[in-house]
Amino acid sequence: MKFDVAVIGGGPAGLSASIFSTRAGLSTICFEQLAIGGQATLSYEIENYPAFKSISGFDLTQKMFEQAKICGTQFQFGTVKIIKKNKSSFSVVTNNETYQVKKLIIASGTISRKLGLNEEKFIGKGISYCASCDGNFFKNKTVAVVGGGDSAFQAVEYLSRIAKKVVLLNRSEKFKANSLRVEMAKKLKNVEIKTNVQVIDLIGDSVLTEIKLNNGKTMKVQGLFVMIGHNPNLNFLDFKIDLDLNGYIVVDKDMKTSENNVYACGDIVSKNFKQVITACADGAIAGNSCVGSSI
Amino acid sequence: MKFDVAVIGGGPAGLSASIFSTRAGLSTICFEQLAIGGQATLSYEIENYPAFKSISGFDLTQKMFEQAKICGTQFQFGTVKIIKKNKSSFSVVTNNETYQVKKLIIASGTISRKLGLNEEKFIGKGISYCASCDGNFFKNKTVAVVGGGDSAFQAVEYLSRIAKKVVLLNRSEKFKANSLRVEMAKKLKNVEIKTNVQVIDLIGDSVLTEIKLNNGKTMKVQGLFVMIGHNPNLNFLDFKIDLDLNGYIVVDKDMKTSENNVYACGDIVSKNFKQVITACADGAIAGNSCVGSSI
Repeated sequence: MKFDVAVIGGGPAGLSASIFSTRAGLSTICFEQLAIGGQATLSYEIENYPAFKSISGFDLTQKMFEQAKICGTQFQFGTVKIIKKNKSSFSVVTNNETYQVKKLIIASGTISRKLGLNEEKFIGKGISYCASCDGNFFKNKTVAVVGGGDSAFQAVEYLSRIAKKVVLLNRSEKFKANSLRVEMAKKLKNVEIKTNVQVIDLIGDSVLTEIKLNNGKTMKVQGLFVMIGHNPNLNFLDFKIDLDLNGYIVVDKDMKTSENNVYACGDIVSKNFKQVITACADGAIAGNSCVGSSI
Repeated sequence: MKFDVAVIGGGPAGLSASIFSTRAGLSTICFEQLAIGGQATLSYEIENYPAFKSISGFDLTQKMFEQAKICGTQFQFGTVKIIKKNKSSFSVVTNNETYQVKKLIIASGTISRKLGLNEEKFIGKGISYCASCDGNFFKNKTVAVVGGGDSAFQAVEYLSRIAKKVVLLNRSEKFKANSLRVEMAKKLKNVEIKTNVQVIDLIGDSVLTEIKLNNGKTMKVQGLFVMIGHNPNLNFLDFKIDLDLNGYIVVDKDMKTSENNVYACGDIVSKNFKQVITACADGAIAGNSCVGSSI
């Protein structure tokens, strides 16, 4: 089958890219591996997508999905096994079929690194992977942050303004984060930093109430922010594009990658601040950038 | 009065910046000169803001306004006369009061360019800057559109479905608009396109009835849509920041301007693709960038 544009990923970035690309008159197919919404569906409640006081990530992205379908985007569920570059097109290969497309929008996002514990049970019920998404639900509560990199310390700083107490738990003595950031966190009155410590169990009935540490102690917490990084989800690409040191795609301000006719948007992109609203804007720009003379 | 952050402008960018800044724990005041929503309120129907199939610009931005108020943003209506830079703060001066703030987010958008004639007299009485806002007042009437860019041709297309006759007046032989758009307009039966012509006078007692052209002729019209572009709205700044050649603010990817602690977002920013969704993302980034060690 042939399309003008293939969007890889049905999270906010991919859905927005689909809306903009389709509305611009380009035949567009969006591939989603698991479920519409991507990582956004992990957010139990989103309060910072402008125009929605409060909405779940699931509901928000379902609305975008409906909108894209009304616009005329086609959706294909299943795994994209490989994307090959041809002379003047790309082949998107799934388990069942190969699609020929002229332009590619990569919106395949990231996968949060997990602790490897029973955390699935508590996602949205104490466990979070995003302080700026969920921090507000922990006003005057005690939370822990797992990690020692910049995103962990950013979360600590962010949460310190909201929570009663924030405890950072780092598995080693050293921090990967910028030292200024670490020093700043140490000065915050309601922040405690513990090193050489690991979370080994999550405890609670319906919601998280306690965490067990590898030093034999337990800690009562209402929230646990797991900030041990993300991995870019890009193992399907059969050709090279420019990535940053962490494996995220480098784009210009029109969301163009280093490869002609390949655009990227959302969490897979190399940038500082990743939110549903910024993913949607990325997608809008990528979709619009596909409108060009070569189609 | 003192605040952490002042947001200048209550359009989508400013409202989103307010939401993100306030939610990050920064006391935030948003200044709006006229009415919440900015230029977005000129859009009768928005179909490309992800998660809304169709909504008016007014309704969409009212939702953002309500959300920002719930977050705790304070709003101040009235003109910001001047913003001065102090040693470690900024003074935002309105007619009634001076506000001291630590960080500044400029989201003041753009103002429609004027013909430079006596058009003030006829605004709302024949002169309009927005076809989708005011087109409906000209059912079965004769209207003219001034301009040759995309927005002028969009207005022609829109008005051709409402008005009896639409005359496009372009001052040169060439059009800045996309050529497909021009060809489409030429095919419309009730559309006439005149080039190398300028409006030099507006005539009418209480309402516009006639326009005078620089070729010595006059034209009877009930409506005149002035679609000759926008100017950045930045006359209140008492210090210099880097602008592009057209007077729009240059920002980095964190929406930082060349001046410390000054951020910008939305239509006032130098960039290619300007939509409500991109303005909101800009605002989110700017609001988040205000979270830093210097507060």
